[in-house]
Amino acid sequence: MRMAELSERSGVPTATIKYYLREGLLRPGRRINATQAAYDEEHLRRLRLVRALIQVGRMPVATAREVLVAVEDESLDHHSRIGAAVWLLPEGTAGAMETVPDAAAEAAERQAVELLERLGWNFGYAARDDSPAYRMLVGALAALERSGYPCTMEDLLVYGHSAGELGAVDLDMIERYEPGTLQVEAAVAGTVLYEPVLLSLRRLAQAEESNRRFGEGG
Amino acid sequence: MRMAELSERSGVPTATIKYYLREGLLRPGRRINATQAAYDEEHLRRLRLVRALIQVGRMPVATAREVLVAVEDESLDHHSRIGAAVWLLPEGTAGAMETVPDAAAEAAERQAVELLERLGWNFGYAARDDSPAYRMLVGALAALERSGYPCTMEDLLVYGHSAGELGAVDLDMIERYEPGTLQVEAAVAGTVLYEPVLLSLRRLAQAEESNRRFGEGG
Repeated sequence: MRMAELSERSGVPTATIKYYLREGLLRPGRRINATQAAYDEEHLRRLRLVRALIQVGRMPVATAREVLVAVEDESLDHHSRIGAAVWLLPEGTAGAMETVPDAAAEAAERQAVELLERLGWNFGYAARDDSPAYRMLVGALAALERSGYPCTMEDLLVYGHSAGELGAVDLDMIERYEPGTLQVEAAVAGTVLYEPVLLSLRRLAQAEESNRRFGEGG
Repeated sequence: MRMAELSERSGVPTATIKYYLREGLLRPGRRINATQAAYDEEHLRRLRLVRALIQVGRMPVATAREVLVAVEDESLDHHSRIGAAVWLLPEGTAGAMETVPDAAAEAAERQAVELLERLGWNFGYAARDDSPAYRMLVGALAALERSGYPCTMEDLLVYGHSAGELGAVDLDMIERYEPGTLQVEAAVAGTVLYEPVLLSLRRLAQAEESNRRFGEGG
């Protein structure tokens, strides 16, 4: 397909597609002549992924580029490849409080270690402490402590078990795709695109629960 | 306590506290003399909440101010008060794709309505369609469709049920606080501060599940 069709089917403006091409986020099309190139379904799929990373994931171009390099890295085994791509995703989309090595940070580190032990999660990765997701968890627990809202292990276990169910359905979803690049792309897209689904459903669930407990005619 | 102690106990620099005071995010202290004021535990609690909203919630000052007005509005019944405060929280922290009234947006609207019906959630609010959380959900479902990763109702129900469990534990957590302003503050803080806990645990769960299914020595 030509650029015009690629733009129409993806919903991404031509100027933006050209920008992504210049930035190396999209492979060049197959050259037809001096001024035109042809694109295929793989370009379309990759273009949609790039748009999800940048618009929904709010990723800087450089980070998106690194993620795509990992997605395409066929030298890694499947588990490592998915891990490498998702590892590079920025620390969620929530902000983080400054990381100072205070009592709250130390308590948060201990809490995170205990939580993961109780959940029985060990990932298979050697360097858990470097994992952006793990650092994000520790940072979030420290922020709760500093804000005057320390969490109990019981509360965290509910969060952990819910997250565990989500992890299982997320892997079910990606396993519908062909092993290899298609699955890794699905893993990256799913991680980014389902975050607002989850956060919005949690807020709606809070409103529903608040209505049941405090509302009139619950 | 004086400004210095307020700064020390909250971990917020004095210059930042003065900024929050100027912006009306914090009530003035009780004036002692021309140059000094005294602050109390309520100031400390409010200061920690403001910092959580701005740093973790990445809220603009104007939005944080509106949230605090709702938190302090004792004219509303409890359910409405919590709802009003949480309603004003920005649409989570994930970006959103441009909202165009295309086929994906229409399908997303239908999916969201069906999902909430199946979950049996109705919130008690009259204007659900205006709810920022609801609009966020519809936007997220549309983005999934446009990105080439449409979700099934079965997948969404897993997300919905997990979110329901989180909503229940979130309400349990806020009910530990005294009814009134303290609970509403806790609701706002909890909504913002647990988002990175949830997002990080989901990523860790994905890594664990991927290890079990694809890793060596699972």
